[in-house]
Amino acid sequence: MGPRLAGSEREAAARDWAVARLKSLGFANVRTESFKIPGWVRGAENARITTPWPHDLHISALGNSVPTPAGGLSAELVYFPTLDALKAAPDGSLKGKIAFVDHAMRANQDGSGYGPYGQVRRQGPAIASQKGAAAIVIRSVGTDHNRDPHTGVTNFPAGTAPIPAGAVSAPDAALIARIAGTGKPMAISLVLEGHPQADMPSGNVVADLPGRDPSLPPILIGCHLDSWDLATGAIDDGAGCAIVTTAALRAQKDGKPLRTIRVLWAGSEELGGFGGAAYAKDHAAEPHALAMESDFGADRVWRVRFAFADTNKALADRIAAALGPMGIVRDGGKAGGGTDVEPVIAAQKLAVIDLEQDGTRYFDLHHTPDDTLDKIDPAQLEQNVAAWTAVLTIVANEAGPISGSN
Amino acid sequence: MGPRLAGSEREAAARDWAVARLKSLGFANVRTESFKIPGWVRGAENARITTPWPHDLHISALGNSVPTPAGGLSAELVYFPTLDALKAAPDGSLKGKIAFVDHAMRANQDGSGYGPYGQVRRQGPAIASQKGAAAIVIRSVGTDHNRDPHTGVTNFPAGTAPIPAGAVSAPDAALIARIAGTGKPMAISLVLEGHPQADMPSGNVVADLPGRDPSLPPILIGCHLDSWDLATGAIDDGAGCAIVTTAALRAQKDGKPLRTIRVLWAGSEELGGFGGAAYAKDHAAEPHALAMESDFGADRVWRVRFAFADTNKALADRIAAALGPMGIVRDGGKAGGGTDVEPVIAAQKLAVIDLEQDGTRYFDLHHTPDDTLDKIDPAQLEQNVAAWTAVLTIVANEAGPISGSN
Repeated sequence: MGPRLAGSEREAAARDWAVARLKSLGFANVRTESFKIPGWVRGAENARITTPWPHDLHISALGNSVPTPAGGLSAELVYFPTLDALKAAPDGSLKGKIAFVDHAMRANQDGSGYGPYGQVRRQGPAIASQKGAAAIVIRSVGTDHNRDPHTGVTNFPAGTAPIPAGAVSAPDAALIARIAGTGKPMAISLVLEGHPQADMPSGNVVADLPGRDPSLPPILIGCHLDSWDLATGAIDDGAGCAIVTTAALRAQKDGKPLRTIRVLWAGSEELGGFGGAAYAKDHAAEPHALAMESDFGADRVWRVRFAFADTNKALADRIAAALGPMGIVRDGGKAGGGTDVEPVIAAQKLAVIDLEQDGTRYFDLHHTPDDTLDKIDPAQLEQNVAAWTAVLTIVANEAGPISGSN
Repeated sequence: MGPRLAGSEREAAARDWAVARLKSLGFANVRTESFKIPGWVRGAENARITTPWPHDLHISALGNSVPTPAGGLSAELVYFPTLDALKAAPDGSLKGKIAFVDHAMRANQDGSGYGPYGQVRRQGPAIASQKGAAAIVIRSVGTDHNRDPHTGVTNFPAGTAPIPAGAVSAPDAALIARIAGTGKPMAISLVLEGHPQADMPSGNVVADLPGRDPSLPPILIGCHLDSWDLATGAIDDGAGCAIVTTAALRAQKDGKPLRTIRVLWAGSEELGGFGGAAYAKDHAAEPHALAMESDFGADRVWRVRFAFADTNKALADRIAAALGPMGIVRDGGKAGGGTDVEPVIAAQKLAVIDLEQDGTRYFDLHHTPDDTLDKIDPAQLEQNVAAWTAVLTIVANEAGPISGSN
């Protein structure tokens, strides 16, 4: 299917393929649920250090970036080692300049660097705009050391003028940091022609494996169908759709479970979680029992978290006991689901289970041209499917009420 | 100094060395604080599968194991895939037999496998004894794949008869699991001559870097001086003493801090945390401000946790901001300290900061003959010292009250 950015023709093609594929796998009620999104389209992009010496930068625009002026932008580059340093810059001090924001993200198994250091991408462009900057360049939000920049979405809140925003690869960022360390003035030329595009078509694909008792609320399991446009989205999130769907099928191998298992292959996750929001709205009147999502690659599940009512403690204990022999530890933190199921979880206060995957390699690949099928380890993928199958087999056969933790 | 098991002559020699070394580094009030412990001494040990075919096992006795009878023990070996399976065995069903308990621990960055899977070592021997077993052998509590077994302490609660208890290396455990999978009966011969020994001498080494204001409660930073007897205890816990002590010295490089920094090089951590308990008792009348410990190897600090009163929120924010540029993420979980400082933390409800180290490799080495100096990466050791120095510089210069979270 290839890259399938939210709103694109390739995302639409992926929906059509998904509908046919889910039908052929034996799913029922397979349908597309359409919605419109504020989209974004990549354009030509390049960047070059011009002062103190010439150096071509590897750059990718961020989603929601606006274009540089015709002919590009050439301006002084001002280095900030952290987002806090950018925040501390006096208002107006960046007028006519390009901000560069660095960060110190490291690879962690739980992916915990993405929260704090990812703010450089999520908030940095809006803050630079508020300080008067003409554009912003950031160190890629990632943990690799190659020349492939990480894209991803940024946001300009109402009242903040959007500016051109791009991410350079880690080695390019390291070079900029070294030059900044010498105290020499820096200038770059910048072309980023990506631009927002309103009212683009997107949609979710939803399919059921009906349970024996249709009166019981279903188990909802999610992933997302769209990908960033730089690669094929194998780990983000083709793997997730493969894992949840295969596990749902395996969970009925020894007979149809009590509850319906519903798969949600969401559209438009990457540009703002529009698919998950649309699902919660479209299905607001239908009660659900529990939601889960797989959207963190295909490396092994190492930890399980729950968001269960106290009345479901024994159910959680049974699930944890089934996962222990797979090397999966139970953690006391609260499960959150994932972007595509969070809106319905919040609206209906659903029970949640997170089967947390090893994220040590994830941010080497995430949102880069390197997110390709060869990165998936079949043995670890299989461990994911085994863990999901064990969990679905238990929860889809639970006759009693299943309730969330708040 | 070499291996320095709690209660041994080498532990005493390490205390003498530590006192001289801390004095030469400029510490004040350097002293040994002695106590007695219920010790344990290793003896001859070997094990061999005799049925269905001969195979020599690599085995280490667990601390608090009692000796096998003269001439050793030969008996049927009964395989349990998990501790839960052992718990489910009928009372008396293991009479005259040797239990084998397997587990599925995997390497996690946060070391979280050690809690649940470590129960096989901590609880397994007592449970096997309660079921009537003559002895127990477990899969080493570790994540490596070599022939070096992991030792460690086990416990027999009052009313439970101690039995011989040992751990075999991962490859040996895998072989036992494969034989069990064939359904063939298994028997082993077992010699474990390690034995408890009462009233052994141990002690803590305590030293101060006095602050400018002696009326302010000190900052307590801990590590432990004893090691297991199979190796030199470089990562457990020589590195911890090096890290906290070097950081304390660096924190006074730009002038003496406001508060006293006290280092506790505890004795007898491994056999039951006796040093930490003795410190809390000996210093019950002295108020402390905050406690920290380094006892998880020398790989990089990746995460910081706090246990601070709400009134110290701004202090925690300042510390987290100083650590962010080192790639250290802040986590909402509660800091616990470590074995050697936990008793005084609990008694005085102290503030705590955990500088959590990357534990991915830790349980490859922990309590094995492979815990040697070559395993320490100087760059990561230096990152630890830098993080500790940054934290100590802030907290030791905090003039206002520092309080724990409960």
